Amino acid sequence: MKVLVFGATGTIGTKVSDLLSENHEVIKVGKTRGDYQADISSLDSLKALFEKTGKVDAIISTTGDITFAPVNDLTKEQWDVGYNSKFLGQVNLVQFGKKFLNEGGSITLTTGILSEKFIMAGASATAINRAVEGYAQAAASELSDVRINVVSPTLLEESTDIYGDFFPGFIPVPGNKVAYSYKRSVEGIETGKIYTVV
Amino acid sequence: MKVLVFGATGTIGTKVSDLLSENHEVIKVGKTRGDYQADISSLDSLKALFEKTGKVDAIISTTGDITFAPVNDLTKEQWDVGYNSKFLGQVNLVQFGKKFLNEGGSITLTTGILSEKFIMAGASATAINRAVEGYAQAAASELSDVRINVVSPTLLEESTDIYGDFFPGFIPVPGNKVAYSYKRSVEGIETGKIYTVV
Repeated sequence: MKVLVFGATGTIGTKVSDLLSENHEVIKVGKTRGDYQADISSLDSLKALFEKTGKVDAIISTTGDITFAPVNDLTKEQWDVGYNSKFLGQVNLVQFGKKFLNEGGSITLTTGILSEKFIMAGASATAINRAVEGYAQAAASELSDVRINVVSPTLLEESTDIYGDFFPGFIPVPGNKVAYSYKRSVEGIETGKIYTVV
Repeated sequence: MKVLVFGATGTIGTKVSDLLSENHEVIKVGKTRGDYQADISSLDSLKALFEKTGKVDAIISTTGDITFAPVNDLTKEQWDVGYNSKFLGQVNLVQFGKKFLNEGGSITLTTGILSEKFIMAGASATAINRAVEGYAQAAASELSDVRINVVSPTLLEESTDIYGDFFPGFIPVPGNKVAYSYKRSVEGIETGKIYTVV
């Protein structure tokens, strides 16, 4: 298969790209690195990208920005970061990206453990991740021409140096393990599923 | 208690106001009707409202707009309706409204069955409702000075004439029954709960 990975140079994206490269043609998309550059929050940017790549068999998103701040301090501008990037950006990959999927194609989005578990300053991450999961499940029910799943990993071992203190008592998982859920989504038959990796 | 009900002249708001008026002072807020008028998506409008009402013991939201459209057609402008009104509007009632709550106060928000069940053209409702529920639960975990709960009703008997065809096979519930969950949230001790009424 031809697999387009957004966020391919990030922590998760690198592991996903490595695993799927074993038996697929992986095209790596980053904001500033990778085979191609694109901003998922911009339909113009995605249009320019797909004109270069042509049709693909699977779209994977391992990207999207979110703001972390105490709930009392969260401003509209901070909410907008997650809404425009992690939410609407991933929505764009479904609603616009599906036009560039071959028959039988799949789209796999990424959320995170904060959709279900709550940490200090994590309210925006919880709300935005929850919205992505609801959207993916509702869209998967409504659309019969594409499979849509979500991978929701807990804290990664590779990220504990930076984020570990924000996740007290969370047992991290290796990125390699997380990558398998993307493989399952791409090569499997399921749709509307949330693959929680803990 | 002094209870401020947003959307008080709507289908659910009327039933909630009637039930809580039996043993509380209910202040009814609507967009164009009620004791006071306010737009929850505008902090200026909420500021003007609270200057008139003074502090209250409970804030209830039974309001918020959302767009229904097939998932393939959903535009950013249509997503923005639910994000600005039903999501950020209810966030405003927590983050700004809590400043006008007496000690021991509570905030009760409203989502709906579509957060968990999927219907044609309901993807925005699912995503936005899911975000509200995640936000309420994360905020309730982070904030110790206010209780925050959500009521998620299924289709109302009073709404079947207008919305029934969109909810095939959903068994409607009477608004009177839904109102009891708001009473439970206001007079009870729980926080971070989703009261699903089916």
